[in-house]
Amino acid sequence: MAPVALALASSRRGPGGGVRPGAVPAGPRDCRRARGRRTGGVQASAGGLGLTSSGPLGRRRRALPGRRSAVDSLCQVTSTRGRPRRTPGSPTGLGSEQDILHAAGELFVTKGFGRTSTRAIAEGAGLQQASVYHWFGSKDEILLRLVLGTVLPSHRIADQLLASDAPGHVLLWALAYADAGLLHEDPQNLGVLYFEPALDGDQFSEFHDVRDSLHEAYRVLLERTTGEPATDVDVAMLVGLVENVITYRRRTRSPIPADTPARVADAALTLARVPDLLTDETRARGTEILAALDSPGPGSAG
Amino acid sequence: MAPVALALASSRRGPGGGVRPGAVPAGPRDCRRARGRRTGGVQASAGGLGLTSSGPLGRRRRALPGRRSAVDSLCQVTSTRGRPRRTPGSPTGLGSEQDILHAAGELFVTKGFGRTSTRAIAEGAGLQQASVYHWFGSKDEILLRLVLGTVLPSHRIADQLLASDAPGHVLLWALAYADAGLLHEDPQNLGVLYFEPALDGDQFSEFHDVRDSLHEAYRVLLERTTGEPATDVDVAMLVGLVENVITYRRRTRSPIPADTPARVADAALTLARVPDLLTDETRARGTEILAALDSPGPGSAG
Repeated sequence: MAPVALALASSRRGPGGGVRPGAVPAGPRDCRRARGRRTGGVQASAGGLGLTSSGPLGRRRRALPGRRSAVDSLCQVTSTRGRPRRTPGSPTGLGSEQDILHAAGELFVTKGFGRTSTRAIAEGAGLQQASVYHWFGSKDEILLRLVLGTVLPSHRIADQLLASDAPGHVLLWALAYADAGLLHEDPQNLGVLYFEPALDGDQFSEFHDVRDSLHEAYRVLLERTTGEPATDVDVAMLVGLVENVITYRRRTRSPIPADTPARVADAALTLARVPDLLTDETRARGTEILAALDSPGPGSAG
Repeated sequence: MAPVALALASSRRGPGGGVRPGAVPAGPRDCRRARGRRTGGVQASAGGLGLTSSGPLGRRRRALPGRRSAVDSLCQVTSTRGRPRRTPGSPTGLGSEQDILHAAGELFVTKGFGRTSTRAIAEGAGLQQASVYHWFGSKDEILLRLVLGTVLPSHRIADQLLASDAPGHVLLWALAYADAGLLHEDPQNLGVLYFEPALDGDQFSEFHDVRDSLHEAYRVLLERTTGEPATDVDVAMLVGLVENVITYRRRTRSPIPADTPARVADAALTLARVPDLLTDETRARGTEILAALDSPGPGSAG
């Protein structure tokens, strides 16, 4: 299934999948896009759908005024700042900030957020503890950056798909496929952090807003596909099907089958009860649309 | 939808839903059943299916020899043991052991396992810290009891459904409905603890064995429904659909719609791609079979 492999590979590299903590640092284009979203993108995309992030699935969180955005942090210049390293060389090869995120992700997922100290994160990153506080205000801020990294790429893809005039079922297949693919490929399976109780704090409202907005995109595409209103349960089951990739990986620990994202996307259309629309043509068009999202240029900033 | 309401109500009370930590203590019949499962039930049911708990979805965990079973602990006589209470009266009204489980569940879910001390658990339960160690060897042992309580009732129902000669699609609908119902009704939504990194330890193999066995029951019923072999991804998506109830509750925090379990059960048959079999008759038969599981008597010990 060549087109499927193509889309997965490209979604790992390009703006569709660029913000991968510990793997791919935010580049200038990611930052331009992320800033656009932060300063109006989330609200604008929600507003464009006639939705707000305090919709039925939302947690009714609001960003605190004056708080520094974690998306802004994604876009800091990272080359020259920081204290001397504790150990020479960057474990990720991407600099201190990414080393901290990578080490923290590993510890949060394997030991738990509550049992991970900033000292342990510093050690994992080969840095002094003070360097952690140079880059991040707190352990919470590191967690926020990590979980934002799990939803921003999918949110970015959803934004662009919603602007497309392709049929709903093609776009729904494409979103489920891309989203499941990103969760499938995340080296640390950071989605397990969605269950971290600390995420209930107001300091994580930015993450919940982006995630709610992504889920609302699923609702819109589901409704375009079926032509009928979708209930909260419908949307929850659809999202659950996609996010099950996180649980499936967590449960088995060994690599899950490579065709899982495609199976999830097929199942999304099955759940929508449009059996006649689940065809090779739908898959091919969905894959093509995703591949086109990656093409650089002024026209691609959705 | 009266039959649906009936089955849910009965699954909350009877042996189908009896082992609910902090809500319903294990009664003699629960213990007889649980012991039967512990001393051969899990292996027997897996063996009966030609499956082992180290199957494709399994984590290849084995119980440690000589370790006290948490199922045995479920069945201890709890009335007369323990130190004097720190505060008078049992918060749950069910005695010290259940008070500890209830307080621990609340803290693990809201603060996180890693950030909860046995001192805090004791305080929540209105007991001396020493009392916690009187009832449980460690915080891990409390966690084990809590997560076992989330899967044993569903596993018990699955065991009985597998022994039925009703059509596969009726039994698959019934299992998804009962399982989703139990997750829906769990007062503390303890399923969120499935993501706790501590569960990777060997001391939790009993939980993983029971859970794997439950998932294998889904596989068998899915295959009976479709008449075709089910892949790991098929089973994972089916389980993910049911366990999404946990995530959905976690995400919204407000009560989720009452018809969620029935919608999940319908979606399970939709995912199995048997649209002609998803009928009111299927739902009615599934509900009847579940109601019959609750009837007490010597014939009901599956």
